[in-house]
Amino acid sequence: MRLKAGLLFASDSRTNAGVDHISTFRKMNVFEQPGERLICVLNAGNLATTQSVISLLRQRCAHEGRHLLNVASLYEAAELLGRTLKEVVARDANDATLGQGVDFGANFIIGGQIRGEAPRLFHVYPQGNFIEATEDTPYFQIGESKYGKPIIDRVIRHGSSLNEATKCTLISFDSTIRSNLSVGLPIDMLIYRSDSFAPAAPHRVEATDPYFLKLSRGWGEGLRRVFAKLPDEDWFGG
Amino acid sequence: MRLKAGLLFASDSRTNAGVDHISTFRKMNVFEQPGERLICVLNAGNLATTQSVISLLRQRCAHEGRHLLNVASLYEAAELLGRTLKEVVARDANDATLGQGVDFGANFIIGGQIRGEAPRLFHVYPQGNFIEATEDTPYFQIGESKYGKPIIDRVIRHGSSLNEATKCTLISFDSTIRSNLSVGLPIDMLIYRSDSFAPAAPHRVEATDPYFLKLSRGWGEGLRRVFAKLPDEDWFGG
Repeated sequence: MRLKAGLLFASDSRTNAGVDHISTFRKMNVFEQPGERLICVLNAGNLATTQSVISLLRQRCAHEGRHLLNVASLYEAAELLGRTLKEVVARDANDATLGQGVDFGANFIIGGQIRGEAPRLFHVYPQGNFIEATEDTPYFQIGESKYGKPIIDRVIRHGSSLNEATKCTLISFDSTIRSNLSVGLPIDMLIYRSDSFAPAAPHRVEATDPYFLKLSRGWGEGLRRVFAKLPDEDWFGG
Repeated sequence: MRLKAGLLFASDSRTNAGVDHISTFRKMNVFEQPGERLICVLNAGNLATTQSVISLLRQRCAHEGRHLLNVASLYEAAELLGRTLKEVVARDANDATLGQGVDFGANFIIGGQIRGEAPRLFHVYPQGNFIEATEDTPYFQIGESKYGKPIIDRVIRHGSSLNEATKCTLISFDSTIRSNLSVGLPIDMLIYRSDSFAPAAPHRVEATDPYFLKLSRGWGEGLRRVFAKLPDEDWFGG
């Protein structure tokens, strides 16, 4: 989400993956220079593809040339991510492998702030092209997104606070987790206040997190209360 | 939905279709002999496929042999629907047409009651095989189902009343309609009370339906009220 108040990134951690790397928060990866830039990348889709893209992006930060730690804008960061994605897919998805019916595709969300710019947020498609969040469309979802979309559509506006955004995001994940086994706790969250350039402090919400449990219970009870109070119609004409 | 109290069928009517036939309620088709059997078929997917399947099923009711108006059980009705679906797909989806990347698939829900049996409900897959609803899984969805699933999962149980089921179904459609343009009003609904064998009386819920408007507004306001009352967490440590 890209709100007036800042950015909120969140990802679940249900995956068939094996290896996690240091400073890799499962489906959330942070590239930062505190005081100067923070870039957060979320991924969904083919794990081999997403891991390769992240590995290449990170590896290249140590070398010459353009990389996520020296590009001048978030737009360039999204373009670099898209190009790296195309590079990996072109390498892995040749005629021989495509015949096996494997989907090499992956979606990414990349956002953050680079000094000199306002916070920005992009959705990079499997084809490597990308769109940017606006005030009218302040959020993107990738992966198993549909179950949790209605609540976001109802409550999140560009002017929502970061606390509201966090609450809504956790409720949205809770709805998805209840209806679909492919999404699961813990949830990794990164909250970034506009123009703070503070070091990233990701927060991991485990199944036992008291706030998450409170929200989950309160939301479920609240929904059932609202539902029960809504009028019945007599469909059998008395 | 197959509940203790009876069956509830509902379908939206957003489609690229052209032609509607008499006694065809858009994506809802009823086969009945009041006093003896009621069978309701809902469809989603390729329109050419679903129309052909329904046309063949209906046409064959006027002829000799097994058809929906003389099969002895709902299980046989589901099997017949699955076989007709396979027949249509085998006819239309040959090597030449498959190469065009068209998806000929369709999903069906078929349910009802035939005298001598309890009400039953089946989901027929694009492959023609099918599963039956149970007390643990009292409902099926086909088509654009994910947005509206969480509310059903939260409130519908085998013991829910038909009025509750109707209320929940309309709220579920409202959530989907708000988040996805491919689903739209009006909604066709058919409510069947167990063992009534009453003539089908489908109800069409239009955009101006006062009950639907009351539910839609009340649910939206209720959700926002519940959301606002849930506690905020201070993510920045004071």
